[in-house]
Amino acid sequence: MNDSTLRYFKAQLPALAGGYKLDVPACPVKLNQNENPYDWPASLKQAVFERVRDLPWNRYPPFVPAEFTQVVARYLGVDARQVLVGNGSNELLYAIFVATLEPGRKVVIPQPTFTVYKLLANLLGAEVVTEGLNTELQYDAAALEKAAQDASVVVIASPNNPTGSVINPMDLEHLVNTTHALWVVDEAYFEFHGETALELVQHTPNLVVLRTFSKAFATAGLRFGCMVCHPDAMPMFAAAKLPYNLNLFTMAAVEVAIEHANALKGRLEEIRRERERVARLLREYRGVKVYPSRANFLLFETDRPPRQLFDSMVRRGVLVRDVSGYPRLSRALRVSIGRPEENDAFLKALEFAITEVPPGGKP
Amino acid sequence: MNDSTLRYFKAQLPALAGGYKLDVPACPVKLNQNENPYDWPASLKQAVFERVRDLPWNRYPPFVPAEFTQVVARYLGVDARQVLVGNGSNELLYAIFVATLEPGRKVVIPQPTFTVYKLLANLLGAEVVTEGLNTELQYDAAALEKAAQDASVVVIASPNNPTGSVINPMDLEHLVNTTHALWVVDEAYFEFHGETALELVQHTPNLVVLRTFSKAFATAGLRFGCMVCHPDAMPMFAAAKLPYNLNLFTMAAVEVAIEHANALKGRLEEIRRERERVARLLREYRGVKVYPSRANFLLFETDRPPRQLFDSMVRRGVLVRDVSGYPRLSRALRVSIGRPEENDAFLKALEFAITEVPPGGKP
Repeated sequence: MNDSTLRYFKAQLPALAGGYKLDVPACPVKLNQNENPYDWPASLKQAVFERVRDLPWNRYPPFVPAEFTQVVARYLGVDARQVLVGNGSNELLYAIFVATLEPGRKVVIPQPTFTVYKLLANLLGAEVVTEGLNTELQYDAAALEKAAQDASVVVIASPNNPTGSVINPMDLEHLVNTTHALWVVDEAYFEFHGETALELVQHTPNLVVLRTFSKAFATAGLRFGCMVCHPDAMPMFAAAKLPYNLNLFTMAAVEVAIEHANALKGRLEEIRRERERVARLLREYRGVKVYPSRANFLLFETDRPPRQLFDSMVRRGVLVRDVSGYPRLSRALRVSIGRPEENDAFLKALEFAITEVPPGGKP
Repeated sequence: MNDSTLRYFKAQLPALAGGYKLDVPACPVKLNQNENPYDWPASLKQAVFERVRDLPWNRYPPFVPAEFTQVVARYLGVDARQVLVGNGSNELLYAIFVATLEPGRKVVIPQPTFTVYKLLANLLGAEVVTEGLNTELQYDAAALEKAAQDASVVVIASPNNPTGSVINPMDLEHLVNTTHALWVVDEAYFEFHGETALELVQHTPNLVVLRTFSKAFATAGLRFGCMVCHPDAMPMFAAAKLPYNLNLFTMAAVEVAIEHANALKGRLEEIRRERERVARLLREYRGVKVYPSRANFLLFETDRPPRQLFDSMVRRGVLVRDVSGYPRLSRALRVSIGRPEENDAFLKALEFAITEVPPGGKP
């Protein structure tokens, strides 16, 4: 089959095919996706089922899930007219990009960050600018302000994945107020950090905050995320999102999650403590550099080839994320913070891997 | 707030805001969304829950749900490398459009049809051509061939919503073979018709077939759809779809639905029979024109103002779809085929409405 047969695709598609993949071995200690290591208690799962059991599965969910959106808005402390709900925050980012990006427009996506942002921007034919993080992989307000001047959108993950770095709230306020770009602040890891841009959204039509239930809320398997924006911007974002996007089960589960937030997020303090413990111990490893993190993962660099360390750890049953293919991270791995015994298993596996793998590889 | 404050939106967004809405009164007889009128049996709902109960809700679903896709592919009788799964077929259409449409490109969407197609095409800045249905609202192969010449994509719903008309399989084969456009055949109502373009996909890189579980499969509340394309085109379509889009509950429910397809789709024959009975009776009403339908709904026109008929039926507890705002349908309503007693309630309510509402209104 020759290329012209598939010429209905946009020109950029062939280069994007297979751009984000995750083929991973099954490992008993899974520290590769920044999940909350604690599953839902059986009683809460049962509560979700009791809620959906008597609903009609043959009927569409409401066109606009008003009551459900109200529950989410109340939890976030914002007005329901500011909230859109989706199958993971990715679905909402997709809608935001479709509403704002097209060929000839520019989006700032400071690298390294979550791979999907750039893939979606490329899909829509936008020009991607990668500036915004300094040499220590921290947000650089001056660089962001400059890059934002002629951009339509700037994406700020705070805490950022995989670096763990955060944007300074005063910097963010200055940036949204002095530029016309739309600032998308992805707060997927908000609960591990504690600072949010939600307050700022109330007065700022060029700011959107994304949240997810996949991390702190231990709900990755249910795929739920939401976005908060200024009410004036909402009708336009809503137009870029499909109707009936959430199914009845997801909505029931999120309602239960919010009612029992303490049960599901009860271990956050432990995870933050573990993050600091693991970071402290890692810093004592010879040749290891650990970046400060405000999320539930750590980014670290070593003087060994990262893929070989990764493989060695897999052989000992520990799965981390090899991020050495990301821009500027050729020596880095990322590890999620799990249960204390899982973190110990990681520390041991890495210690062994460092003895097993000789220094070297490209710097 | 003035317009320039929101200038990060693409130029077409303001006109699209609020473009597809469904504000409907609650009615005991709900015949407005072409749903299967029979809910899942309690035993099958229980089976779904037993399947998800022991899964880890805190973990992401598989990056590519290979086993699940295999189940769906086997049910459809195609290779798993040809199947993409989504939260309703709309999500897949969105991905298809993002992969193929941009400003300067043309898409053929014969009108009247499902409103979402045109909204998505407009979102992406594509030019929309509305030709393709003749005066009797049947597909016109010559008109389609002409319109497709310089188009990137042609969308054919077969059976079409809300007209009930279908594309001739020989016409479709000729059209895909003699044009370079991508032909998207939405077979949401396939089970009520029985003819499919799936066979043709095997040899045709410029054809995609969409299916949904929201209609015949009585699974609208779970939001599941899939697409089938040629394996050569798959990597490009896959690149336009978000990872982890399906949650664990949807996948479990669809597996159960496929295993128990006969239980869920057991009433299809009754629905088809009812469609013919209702059409026959409707045709005896004075001033009513009924279009032939191969789906689970009927489109009809009357000599009365449709909104007034709609309101009169709502007062008698029967909800149909007012499609009089669609192109070329200023005198039309659409009614879904429900349970026999619901269809009787509709027939009675319409009979009463016709006596209540005087003829007139714009033709």
